[in-house]
Amino acid sequence: MEKIYDVIIIGGGPAGLTAAIYACRARLNTLLFEKASLGGQVIITEKIDNFPGFPEGAAGYELIENMRKQAEKFGMEAINEEVNAITADKHIKIIKTQSGKEYRTSAILVTTGANFRRLNIPGEIELVGKGVSYCATCDGPFFRNQDVVVIGGGDAAIEEALFLTRLAKKVFVIHRRAQLRATKILQEHLFANPKIEFIGEHIPVEIIDAKDANKVGAIRVKNVKTNEEKNIETKAVFIFIGTDPNTAFLKDSIELDPSGYIITDENMQTSVEGIFAAGDCRKKLFRQVITACGEGATAVFAAEKYLERVHNLG
Amino acid sequence: MEKIYDVIIIGGGPAGLTAAIYACRARLNTLLFEKASLGGQVIITEKIDNFPGFPEGAAGYELIENMRKQAEKFGMEAINEEVNAITADKHIKIIKTQSGKEYRTSAILVTTGANFRRLNIPGEIELVGKGVSYCATCDGPFFRNQDVVVIGGGDAAIEEALFLTRLAKKVFVIHRRAQLRATKILQEHLFANPKIEFIGEHIPVEIIDAKDANKVGAIRVKNVKTNEEKNIETKAVFIFIGTDPNTAFLKDSIELDPSGYIITDENMQTSVEGIFAAGDCRKKLFRQVITACGEGATAVFAAEKYLERVHNLG
Repeated sequence: MEKIYDVIIIGGGPAGLTAAIYACRARLNTLLFEKASLGGQVIITEKIDNFPGFPEGAAGYELIENMRKQAEKFGMEAINEEVNAITADKHIKIIKTQSGKEYRTSAILVTTGANFRRLNIPGEIELVGKGVSYCATCDGPFFRNQDVVVIGGGDAAIEEALFLTRLAKKVFVIHRRAQLRATKILQEHLFANPKIEFIGEHIPVEIIDAKDANKVGAIRVKNVKTNEEKNIETKAVFIFIGTDPNTAFLKDSIELDPSGYIITDENMQTSVEGIFAAGDCRKKLFRQVITACGEGATAVFAAEKYLERVHNLG
Repeated sequence: MEKIYDVIIIGGGPAGLTAAIYACRARLNTLLFEKASLGGQVIITEKIDNFPGFPEGAAGYELIENMRKQAEKFGMEAINEEVNAITADKHIKIIKTQSGKEYRTSAILVTTGANFRRLNIPGEIELVGKGVSYCATCDGPFFRNQDVVVIGGGDAAIEEALFLTRLAKKVFVIHRRAQLRATKILQEHLFANPKIEFIGEHIPVEIIDAKDANKVGAIRVKNVKTNEEKNIETKAVFIFIGTDPNTAFLKDSIELDPSGYIITDENMQTSVEGIFAAGDCRKKLFRQVITACGEGATAVFAAEKYLERVHNLG
C-alpha cells in the first residue's frame, strides 16, 4: 500500500523549516517540498538584526542553514519540487507535484510565503540588501539619520514612511499620482510630518549605486506629466507596492482572501480540516521571520491535535 | 513634566525581550519591568532543542543572555521591580510598582508569563531539567525508547501522554483518582494504546535520583486507599497538573479567562485599547519560546499602529 505521511509541509522558508523541526522531533512522519532553494525570501537577506537570540545579527543564509541542519538532525526528508495542486478528501489528502507525482498525507501545512512586488527597474535587484529594501521594520534602523526614499502611495507605504521618520533624517515619498491611496488619517499624519517630503506624479526609473561603492547612492525619477528626469540622493530605497502570496495552486482548495492570502484561525487551521497554514502566505498583520517561525510551530501543534483526534495517532 | 513612555513592557522573558528588541530598534521610548531575573521560566531550562536557528540546541540562560544583549544593543532600559497595578485612562496609562513608584506610558505590553503548578514533593525542584519536566513537546524527544511517567488526569496530561507514546518505550500515567477528568475520546485513545499503563488512585510522594547520577531514576507513589507505597523506575517525570498565569494584578484592568489568562485578538490587543499581551500569559493553544517571541514582535507592531493612529507618533 502506498505510504501515507502524517504531515506534508509545502514550502521551505522559516515557517516550513520550523514546522519541520517540530514535526520531525515529535516523530511525525513528515515530508517537505520546496520548489527553489530552502529559505524563501530570507536567503537573500544580507543581515537580519531582529531575530531574537542573535545579538550580532545574522545573515539570512546563515539562519536558514542553521534551521536546515536542525531539521535534518531530527530526520527531515525534503524534496526539491514544486507542488501544483492539493486535493482533500475527508481523511486523506493528496499532493500533486509538477512532475505529476502524487503523495498521500493525513495533514498538510502550507508555508509557501509571499513575494514583494518589484519595480523592475535597473539597479533594483542588484542593490537588494545594499540599500534597496521591502521592509522598513527590518532595514530602517540601518539608515539612522540618513536620507531615505519610499516608493508607493497605499496604506503600507505611508505607514512605513511614518515609521521611517523615527529613524531617518528625511523621508522622500515618491508616488506616480498626485493623490495618495492611503486612508485620510495616514495622509494627514504624513503631510503634518516635517521630515517627509512628498513627491507626487513621479515614477522611479533607475536606482543608482554610490560612486565606488556597491550600495545605493541615488534614485532617478521621472515626472509623469513633463517626462523630465532628476536624481534624488538617498542611502536607501524602500519599495512598498504590494506583495503576492504564493497560493495560486490553492485557489480551488481552501479559502483565500481577495489578495490570495490564506485565511486561518489563530491556531493556523484553514477552511479545510487538516490543512494548516503558517508564515507570510497567511492573512495577517505582521510578516517577520520570527512570527513565521512561531506560526510554523503552532501549526504543527494544531496538526498533532488533529491527528490525535481524527487519525487516532499517538 | 513627567516623562511619558511610548511602551512599557511588563515581564522580561522571551516575549518581553523580543518586544524590547523590536520596540527599541524602532526607536520607541521603551521601559521594561522584570520582578525577578530576566528570562522567566526559560532561564532554568537546561537545553532547548527546538528554538529555530540553534542546530545544536541552546541552554535557556544562553538564549536569554543573547536576547538581553541584543535588546541592550538597541538601548533597552530595564528596571528590576514588580508591577503591582495598572490604570488605563483613554490615552495615558499608569504603571504602579511595588515600591509605590508610578510610570506613565501611551501603550502597555504584558508579557508576564505563567508558572507550571508543582507537585511540591522531594526531588522535584532538584531534578528539573534532569528528568523532571513540565513540557512533553520540549523534553519528550530526550527520552526516546525509555520508560517515562506522566502525572495528571486532565486533557493536557492525556494529550501529552499520547504524544509521548510516539517517543518513549512505555508511558505510566499516574492519577490520584480512579477516573480521569480528560474528555471521553482522549480516554478511549489512552486505554487503547498498548504503550500506556494507567495507574489510578495513586499519588506521587518522591522523585528519586538514579544511583550515582544527578538525574531521575524512579518515582515513589502511594496508593490513596491502602497507603501502600512503591517505586516505579523511570527516566523522566512529566508533570501536567496545571499552569497559573502571572496576571493577578490585572484582574480589574483587562479581560481574563476563568483561569486568569489574558484574552487578546490575533494581533495581541487586549480588551483595553493600547494594552497588548504576548507569550504564556495569553489564552492560547501552544506555549513555546518561539511562539512567545513571535507574539512579542507582533504586539510591538500592533502597538506602533496604535501609537501612530491615536498618539500621532511618527
